[in-house]
Amino acid sequence: MKLLRFGPKGQEKPGILDNSGNVRDLSGKVVDFAGKGVSLEALDALRQIDVGGLPLVDQPGRIGSCLADVPNFFCIGLNYAKHAAETGAEPPKEPIVFSKATSALSGPFDPVVIPRRSVKADWEVELGVVIGRKATYVSEAEALGYVAGYCTINDVSEREFQIEKGGQWIKGKSAPTFGPIGPYLVTADEVPDPQNLKVRLTLNGDVMQDSDTSDMIFTVAEIVSYMSNFMMLRPGDIIATGTPSGVGMGLKPQRYLKPGDVMEIEVAGLGRQRQEVIAAD
Amino acid sequence: MKLLRFGPKGQEKPGILDNSGNVRDLSGKVVDFAGKGVSLEALDALRQIDVGGLPLVDQPGRIGSCLADVPNFFCIGLNYAKHAAETGAEPPKEPIVFSKATSALSGPFDPVVIPRRSVKADWEVELGVVIGRKATYVSEAEALGYVAGYCTINDVSEREFQIEKGGQWIKGKSAPTFGPIGPYLVTADEVPDPQNLKVRLTLNGDVMQDSDTSDMIFTVAEIVSYMSNFMMLRPGDIIATGTPSGVGMGLKPQRYLKPGDVMEIEVAGLGRQRQEVIAAD
Repeated sequence: MKLLRFGPKGQEKPGILDNSGNVRDLSGKVVDFAGKGVSLEALDALRQIDVGGLPLVDQPGRIGSCLADVPNFFCIGLNYAKHAAETGAEPPKEPIVFSKATSALSGPFDPVVIPRRSVKADWEVELGVVIGRKATYVSEAEALGYVAGYCTINDVSEREFQIEKGGQWIKGKSAPTFGPIGPYLVTADEVPDPQNLKVRLTLNGDVMQDSDTSDMIFTVAEIVSYMSNFMMLRPGDIIATGTPSGVGMGLKPQRYLKPGDVMEIEVAGLGRQRQEVIAAD
Repeated sequence: MKLLRFGPKGQEKPGILDNSGNVRDLSGKVVDFAGKGVSLEALDALRQIDVGGLPLVDQPGRIGSCLADVPNFFCIGLNYAKHAAETGAEPPKEPIVFSKATSALSGPFDPVVIPRRSVKADWEVELGVVIGRKATYVSEAEALGYVAGYCTINDVSEREFQIEKGGQWIKGKSAPTFGPIGPYLVTADEVPDPQNLKVRLTLNGDVMQDSDTSDMIFTVAEIVSYMSNFMMLRPGDIIATGTPSGVGMGLKPQRYLKPGDVMEIEVAGLGRQRQEVIAAD
């Protein structure tokens, strides 16, 4: 299933793509996609619905974030060897875990707003993993059984806020609009191998990132299993699994986002995003 | 107002302390305390209720976390000079921001569970700040006007997970039960000066931490204002504002929690916590 949310910001309705690629309205069947609304049980119940019998949405208009809210917006750092190298870091021995403020969540086509006093706003295409079942002390072999689905993420980052202001990365990861997710939450049954997906980002039409999840240092199964030793993952939690090389910080000279720039982003099979960059008020 | 949640885990009802210190049942008036349920508007509406007319709860039983859920569980690191020194760190020039997984949230009297493979579980009494209004680019002068209230927090921490496993602190801050909050959410009007509160923690009756929020490097107003430059704070977000000296990591020799230990914790005026330490299954 390809699940999505359509409508004006804050008033999105849940929907689903039918076999012809049209949006069908699920708001008569489910409340919204968030938390338990994307549990494995909730998704199994959705599978019983006759999609062709749902109201057809002729003009879906704006597509929102594919989740209404997330209990946690986790991220994995430096999970592609070439990206670690371009930042000047050693490849990590264990997954680096950090988080974005959940208020960073944004629609896949909404503008990305450069915060006030920002000079180093940067892009990061990533494979997103959505948890479908409470997970603690899960083995690698079992880990993919806890995944509800996958989505495209732009883990927008402000490098000065992230690195040059003392302490932890969350400061550079959390501005409003810094977390576009979607357009679709693609359920796990439609992604037979999450380690075989092309990830790609263009800036103003130029290819900046072009890689494959086969190059990830830690696989999705390893990440979910590893994290479950340190915290309980819950339905609706999202994990951005790291970005490949080609971010602005890694270029020579470095290049950062400016108003008017356009990012186009895709993880193969999960749908494309497009964001125009604008300045904060 | 002193707001609380009482009842079995996962089935808590919202309540309020009356003038005699008895619990009154608010479940007929409000859904629960989380997100918009603790917005300044929601709290203003609560103030119109005749508390004496609410059902008296003779046997409140278990007291749960004072918030049902939090959109974000933020923390400030090394915010007392002596604590920074005991960890071997310089006092920070800007607030260090990090987060706990929101699934760490726990009741103030629930056992604290030492995770599997943990050898350095540690304690941290802290003043907790609960946000009541969306905050972006808020000045220090305005910042306290965005605070819904305050609570006692034990920012339980696993130092090996936090520091010795690469990357970011969240790994050592996020285990289930690592975030006891409460017993009360004390509304801001009852805390005229958040920088004049005693904070205290005993372990098995011995005083380990004994300080005052007047010793904080960054005040609550400075923290809220600062953070609002990097992210949008929203109603129900909680910020643990840092711990004073006296944690186990800072002792010589270092001392860490073991099953059977009892922590008793208090921030003056916000209520006391008590947790027994147990091992994970």
